[in-house]
Amino acid sequence: MSGHLVASYDAELKDLKQHVLTMGGLVEKMITDAIKALVDRDTELAEKIIAMDHEVNGHEVAIDEKCLELLALRQPTGRDLRFITLALKIVTDLERIGDKCANMAKRARQLNQEPPLKPYVDIPRMAHWVEQMIKEALDAFVRGDAELAIKVCKDDQMVDDLNQQVQRELYTYMLEDPATISRAMRLTYISKSLERIADHATNIAEMVIFMVKGKDIRHTLP
Amino acid sequence: MSGHLVASYDAELKDLKQHVLTMGGLVEKMITDAIKALVDRDTELAEKIIAMDHEVNGHEVAIDEKCLELLALRQPTGRDLRFITLALKIVTDLERIGDKCANMAKRARQLNQEPPLKPYVDIPRMAHWVEQMIKEALDAFVRGDAELAIKVCKDDQMVDDLNQQVQRELYTYMLEDPATISRAMRLTYISKSLERIADHATNIAEMVIFMVKGKDIRHTLP
Repeated sequence: MSGHLVASYDAELKDLKQHVLTMGGLVEKMITDAIKALVDRDTELAEKIIAMDHEVNGHEVAIDEKCLELLALRQPTGRDLRFITLALKIVTDLERIGDKCANMAKRARQLNQEPPLKPYVDIPRMAHWVEQMIKEALDAFVRGDAELAIKVCKDDQMVDDLNQQVQRELYTYMLEDPATISRAMRLTYISKSLERIADHATNIAEMVIFMVKGKDIRHTLP
Repeated sequence: MSGHLVASYDAELKDLKQHVLTMGGLVEKMITDAIKALVDRDTELAEKIIAMDHEVNGHEVAIDEKCLELLALRQPTGRDLRFITLALKIVTDLERIGDKCANMAKRARQLNQEPPLKPYVDIPRMAHWVEQMIKEALDAFVRGDAELAIKVCKDDQMVDDLNQQVQRELYTYMLEDPATISRAMRLTYISKSLERIADHATNIAEMVIFMVKGKDIRHTLP
């Protein structure tokens, strides 16, 4: 007999959970760093985030493969089946968040070549909330915690409100001085990207509620 | 014996394909109509599209359930497994496209209340391409046609270029006359939404190539 151990099904599921959390941790860091690259005018950091997108893509491919393997070899049903199929969907959201972070970093890199438009207050605050939402959505996923997932769905409104506020403020800059338009448009883009990342977190949370409750409340929350 | 017939596995798979195509047809129509509502200044049509989003969401839920049922009861492997898990991912993209169409219709509704900024030339052209890309990505999915999927990935560049052109043109409007900023921003949003819908089509196409070739070329195409 060889010393080779066949991983138990439970261990494989645990491993899948851990891998999703690792990928989540990576995109959380990308959000923080993209905003840090903007606020600190750190173009080197922006470059690093743009390069990290590749790493996120690699995680997506690996997790997809792991899920297909589990479905084919373990033929799960019930809650495990919902968990694995949800992992398949969640990694797509995480990969798209990675894309958006890389794009925010590209805008930060452009903005760093021009004089600063204004001190950033609301955008870092938004980024903080958004990162928290992703963290909680993924925690809700691995723990099967529907209450926490519902909290994430509710927090989305806060990010939407902050984005509206940022958009309105940037609009007044553009109106008053056309020389600010190009920079204000880039900041608008960053603010909207954060708002869309929050939408991804909300999508994940809605799917978690579906997984836990076994019935679909997607598209019904206020 | 009752007259009840148990649907064959092949019939169930065919039914799943058809359902995805139906949902795809719906979002294709939403794209066309959202741009029609803008060009024809047809607010009533915009309202209809906003209401259709609900219907798209219903399809997503139903297809998800169908996929889970097939996975649990038929325990597919190999190519069928890839097909069903891909259907699960594709409906998420289609649902998000529906969201974006509803949002474009909301912007069209706002724009219809103000004087027209300019005749629309590039935006309808973009919409036409984007709709074609979705149609072809879904055809590639149901037929397992990797060549067609590769074409979709390549066409994405065309939409990106058109979006860049629209953005630049709108920027000149804003620079010349601040009174146009609010309308130009809304049009910018619509153009970017179309570009992002093309990204969804590209994502679907990349996943189809993965399904057909059995290996991952996602994130490696130019």
